[in-house]
Amino acid sequence: MKIDVGVLGATGMVGQRFVSLLADHPWFEPRFLTASSRSAGKPYVDAVNWFLDEEIPESVREVDVRETKADFPADLVFSALPSSVASHVEPEFANEGYIVASNASSYRMESGIPLLIPEVNPNHLDLINSQKRSKKHGGAIITNPNCSTIILAMSIAPLYKRYGIKEIKVATLQAVSGAGYSGVPSMAIIDNVIPYISGEEEKMENETLKILGQIVGSEVDQAEIEISAQCNRVPVIDGHTENVWVKLENNSTINEIKEVMENFRGEPQKLELPSAPKKPIHVLDERDRPQPRIDRGRNKGMSISIGRLKKGKSDGELTFTVLGHNTLRGAAGASILNAELLVEKGYM
Amino acid sequence: MKIDVGVLGATGMVGQRFVSLLADHPWFEPRFLTASSRSAGKPYVDAVNWFLDEEIPESVREVDVRETKADFPADLVFSALPSSVASHVEPEFANEGYIVASNASSYRMESGIPLLIPEVNPNHLDLINSQKRSKKHGGAIITNPNCSTIILAMSIAPLYKRYGIKEIKVATLQAVSGAGYSGVPSMAIIDNVIPYISGEEEKMENETLKILGQIVGSEVDQAEIEISAQCNRVPVIDGHTENVWVKLENNSTINEIKEVMENFRGEPQKLELPSAPKKPIHVLDERDRPQPRIDRGRNKGMSISIGRLKKGKSDGELTFTVLGHNTLRGAAGASILNAELLVEKGYM
Amino acid sequence: MKIDVGVLGATGMVGQRFVSLLADHPWFEPRFLTASSRSAGKPYVDAVNWFLDEEIPESVREVDVRETKADFPADLVFSALPSSVASHVEPEFANEGYIVASNASSYRMESGIPLLIPEVNPNHLDLINSQKRSKKHGGAIITNPNCSTIILAMSIAPLYKRYGIKEIKVATLQAVSGAGYSGVPSMAIIDNVIPYISGEEEKMENETLKILGQIVGSEVDQAEIEISAQCNRVPVIDGHTENVWVKLENNSTINEIKEVMENFRGEPQKLELPSAPKKPIHVLDERDRPQPRIDRGRNKGMSISIGRLKKGKSDGELTFTVLGHNTLRGAAGASILNAELLVEKGYM
Amino acid sequence: MKIDVGVLGATGMVGQRFVSLLADHPWFEPRFLTASSRSAGKPYVDAVNWFLDEEIPESVREVDVRETKADFPADLVFSALPSSVASHVEPEFANEGYIVASNASSYRMESGIPLLIPEVNPNHLDLINSQKRSKKHGGAIITNPNCSTIILAMSIAPLYKRYGIKEIKVATLQAVSGAGYSGVPSMAIIDNVIPYISGEEEKMENETLKILGQIVGSEVDQAEIEISAQCNRVPVIDGHTENVWVKLENNSTINEIKEVMENFRGEPQKLELPSAPKKPIHVLDERDRPQPRIDRGRNKGMSISIGRLKKGKSDGELTFTVLGHNTLRGAAGASILNAELLVEKGYM
Repeated sequence: MKIDVGVLGATGMVGQRFVSLLADHPWFEPRFLTASSRSAGKPYVDAVNWFLDEEIPESVREVDVRETKADFPADLVFSALPSSVASHVEPEFANEGYIVASNASSYRMESGIPLLIPEVNPNHLDLINSQKRSKKHGGAIITNPNCSTIILAMSIAPLYKRYGIKEIKVATLQAVSGAGYSGVPSMAIIDNVIPYISGEEEKMENETLKILGQIVGSEVDQAEIEISAQCNRVPVIDGHTENVWVKLENNSTINEIKEVMENFRGEPQKLELPSAPKKPIHVLDERDRPQPRIDRGRNKGMSISIGRLKKGKSDGELTFTVLGHNTLRGAAGASILNAELLVEKGYM
Repeated sequence: MKIDVGVLGATGMVGQRFVSLLADHPWFEPRFLTASSRSAGKPYVDAVNWFLDEEIPESVREVDVRETKADFPADLVFSALPSSVASHVEPEFANEGYIVASNASSYRMESGIPLLIPEVNPNHLDLINSQKRSKKHGGAIITNPNCSTIILAMSIAPLYKRYGIKEIKVATLQAVSGAGYSGVPSMAIIDNVIPYISGEEEKMENETLKILGQIVGSEVDQAEIEISAQCNRVPVIDGHTENVWVKLENNSTINEIKEVMENFRGEPQKLELPSAPKKPIHVLDERDRPQPRIDRGRNKGMSISIGRLKKGKSDGELTFTVLGHNTLRGAAGASILNAELLVEKGYM
Repeated sequence: MKIDVGVLGATGMVGQRFVSLLADHPWFEPRFLTASSRSAGKPYVDAVNWFLDEEIPESVREVDVRETKADFPADLVFSALPSSVASHVEPEFANEGYIVASNASSYRMESGIPLLIPEVNPNHLDLINSQKRSKKHGGAIITNPNCSTIILAMSIAPLYKRYGIKEIKVATLQAVSGAGYSGVPSMAIIDNVIPYISGEEEKMENETLKILGQIVGSEVDQAEIEISAQCNRVPVIDGHTENVWVKLENNSTINEIKEVMENFRGEPQKLELPSAPKKPIHVLDERDRPQPRIDRGRNKGMSISIGRLKKGKSDGELTFTVLGHNTLRGAAGASILNAELLVEKGYM
Repeated sequence: MKIDVGVLGATGMVGQRFVSLLADHPWFEPRFLTASSRSAGKPYVDAVNWFLDEEIPESVREVDVRETKADFPADLVFSALPSSVASHVEPEFANEGYIVASNASSYRMESGIPLLIPEVNPNHLDLINSQKRSKKHGGAIITNPNCSTIILAMSIAPLYKRYGIKEIKVATLQAVSGAGYSGVPSMAIIDNVIPYISGEEEKMENETLKILGQIVGSEVDQAEIEISAQCNRVPVIDGHTENVWVKLENNSTINEIKEVMENFRGEPQKLELPSAPKKPIHVLDERDRPQPRIDRGRNKGMSISIGRLKKGKSDGELTFTVLGHNTLRGAAGASILNAELLVEKGYM
């Protein structure tokens, strides 16, 4: 007996990833697909400009696309809406009693709304209770972080828990898919780098502190880390690469740190959630890895890969490069893993 | 009356840049072009696999390529040799009395050999005297830094002089031309990033400290800055982009810092050397600049461009992005500017 | 005494090329720049998202952008308007007495409107007379062909004139700039080819026959050639590459054909028009040329380059590859050369 | 009971594809991996510079790489050797009694050696008998065509059989992987097209005629088709795109032709060979397909995709675009399918 779910904004790039991942999902059945009114009424195959390198799943080809309205019989919806739309649509769904597992940025920093990476801060899911109490029909919004934040936060979470962290600096080399299908014109990026992504540095800096924060009552007490991000767009289709400097509270050896990262496991692994990678973090020994084209697909794009792990110049400083798939682990896969945790924890 | 000069390794990528820049040079006449024995004896047009987007200069098309031996009547040679060859060939030329303006890495860190950026440490040229005394015929080697180092060092030099610097972190996004024509296979870099460049991080860290150091006797007393680099290759033809964090000894305002950078001038500007850009540093206000494809050619590729200048999280911390043309300001143009300073200072 | 001219659609990609080329033009002064109402009223520097790898010309930085209305004192305007806008705006300007040198496709195939390549069919300019008579104030529209058509037509014109042509097949590899700044998303073209460009094959097939046609009265009697085009978009910024098969009416030798191409000259060369390349066609002997990145800039992007010239399998068949700069020779430069011919021929 | 096989040249790009495909093969066990003497003696994981976006198969990681000598106990070897090496090594193996399924070009056009596409000319396998008789130990060489030839030949085979073909023109847009890992420097192809691939046009023209030829005695009587190819390299990792013009002997309708292509089946499909795609040719209706990044992986890269199918200008003329995966269907997968046919037909 699968759970009927909806995908809001199902024709965009993250929407297509949702559809692709949900088509074979053991728990969820993507019965309701929404898009802008321009597409409403068409079968999905006609409404979508499909660009993944796999066929449109048979089960959704002929599903009629609907307008994004809270009028269909599902308890759970995944939101791939742009934040400008999400900001007013997601509360409508929550008010009508839907659980909204959102990839949009609109409510991530809202107190009382979980900003979740199931391996990192599963207990933040508790915030959902106060939401559910406050809505008419028991709906709620849960969010996953920005793509570049998830990759960073997963890489530092085991270090933060074991050693404490005083300071993080991160420079990113981000794939064009992070900007949506039409987000980066080819004229802007062939033979080029763009050293700016609107709002991205702030998202990385702010979201990371919330994710690593502690629940106090029905609020999150943010982590106290000095964090600074510089974000760049590069001519890569999928996969964000990040150069990281971390200053640990308590120093350790590279071997131990490597072990801590490799052995990192969380709730999704314990609960054997369907989308959970067996091993969330892979540490690569090759001196020129991770690389987006080679490593982004690891464990169906749900693991992150770390390489070039070494000591920095000052005491407790560590440097490494981390890579993750921005539209899988960093977006659609993240939302689905969130929903799986929510189901398994009995919130549905 | 031009000075006859030679170009060692004239058929490679940096070699072609030397040839292109020297063909129109007001002081230098590239009369002697050397390459490996395979090419020796052929006219340059037949020996070279020309790839610049301009024609081979008429004046060198028919110049016969020679083997790389110190047997031709010129006082000055530019070396675009690979370091494995440069390490034994350059001393041979110096011993025979040639001044060698080298782009190779072999002798950059040698005490007694100037590692020069004419705007930054022109007084390091004095080291040449002890060299000239020690060689039979008064020859000497002068070097320019690694491409990514020059760009970084130019950007921080005015800050170092004015405010002092305690700490530098830099993440680079480097063009493929930095690895030589065949250095990066297309299979390795299309839709990809490589988070490793052999020896590059060490070069950036070590060379920067020598450049910013003080001459004490006939040695350089290196600067004391905690510096850490992470280097990446990206699918860009020319132009290295660098994200920089700097911790100043003495804090200031962004406006003043911007002014300090924009007003930075050095010996090449005072002496009006032929290859000197009027303004070595351009600070761009657009939020998404500098970008390699748009900004690398500024002032014939001899200026660097800085953007995204802003305060960091902690006191005295500054972040910015700097871009420069790696085979012009970062290689051939750098050597030529070094030689111009040397001529103007009366060392020839 | 320069002629005041306007540029319609001055902020787009072809518009920027117009502005860049006209800023230094010896005859024309770009005093009036128009754009959509959104940009109207702003200085050009603020209205434009400049992307050329040169600075915005000083002379136009502060020019106030106007709405695209026929209300300013200039006799000549260059149109870089999208065809949907050009179709109603260009006749308005012509009716008000302006000469419109247009790069838009709207009126290219209209009988009575010259579709001009000054080297190829300068006599088609005569069509302008009937237009000027029919308009209230003596205005007229002249057009240049589609970018891929110009490059093809220039390459075959000398062959057509000398030998006659029965059949042409052409496969194109076209740059992304041909689609406008946002025309091709990076997600669509990195590590990819798109074997379709809307309307392009029909334009190449139809426009070529008009260009090579004969003026009969005030109409063009189209050339009779069997022509078939297949068009592809490739990850190249500027420069269209075209593989051509031509069947000549009268056979010849490769040497003679090469000479015919290299010696091809037209009115622009005889009249020494400012934008005319000395040599419109360069035939390259290197076996792997022409290449867009290396050869597109030849003669300021106004010459085309031909390579791989060889006999085909059947009698009279010839194959070659031709390359030209699509936004210079294929767009803005083409319109300007048209206007120069028009001025020199006394039509203003 | 699997058949032990060897892979000659197992560390190169096609070699890695062989290893990846054979690791899971139901019939073949890749027990012997050879490479140059430089790699011999190392475990495969250390000898190879693995670049596929999947892990090195566990079963071969620790296999010791051997020199390429005919001294190991296997009856069948796959050759991914460069042709300069293959030309002397492959006959040595055949003389020692091995069956050599080769991807090298050295012996493709040799009379008496099958040049095989199992769906197209399975009966050419008979040529092997005369070879086996002539060798001491019953060995033989069978070859698959050049990558761009396979894709073309598969697309035209059903048309040739049904309608006859008088003439073919083809322009290719070929991926960089076709040149081997280091074959195309990134400096040569970023923002560029190279309109030349050494020997490629001749291979396409000659090999196609042999493949479509008839066996007469122990020779192949080549097909009589006027065929002309123009070949280009483009910045694509995998997947060759080809624009094709075909002149049919007997005309038909597009609908019928489409049906003929879609229904095309051959021996591999009848015999249900492990590597056979269920449907060798997919005809796509979308106007902008096939595209390499989206369509190359169809049926594990073993099907070709055809699009833009339409009538040409003259009677019987047909134009279309065909795409196939050059290192799967066009190389390693092709050799393996050949070997599967050979096993199933009882030649081992």
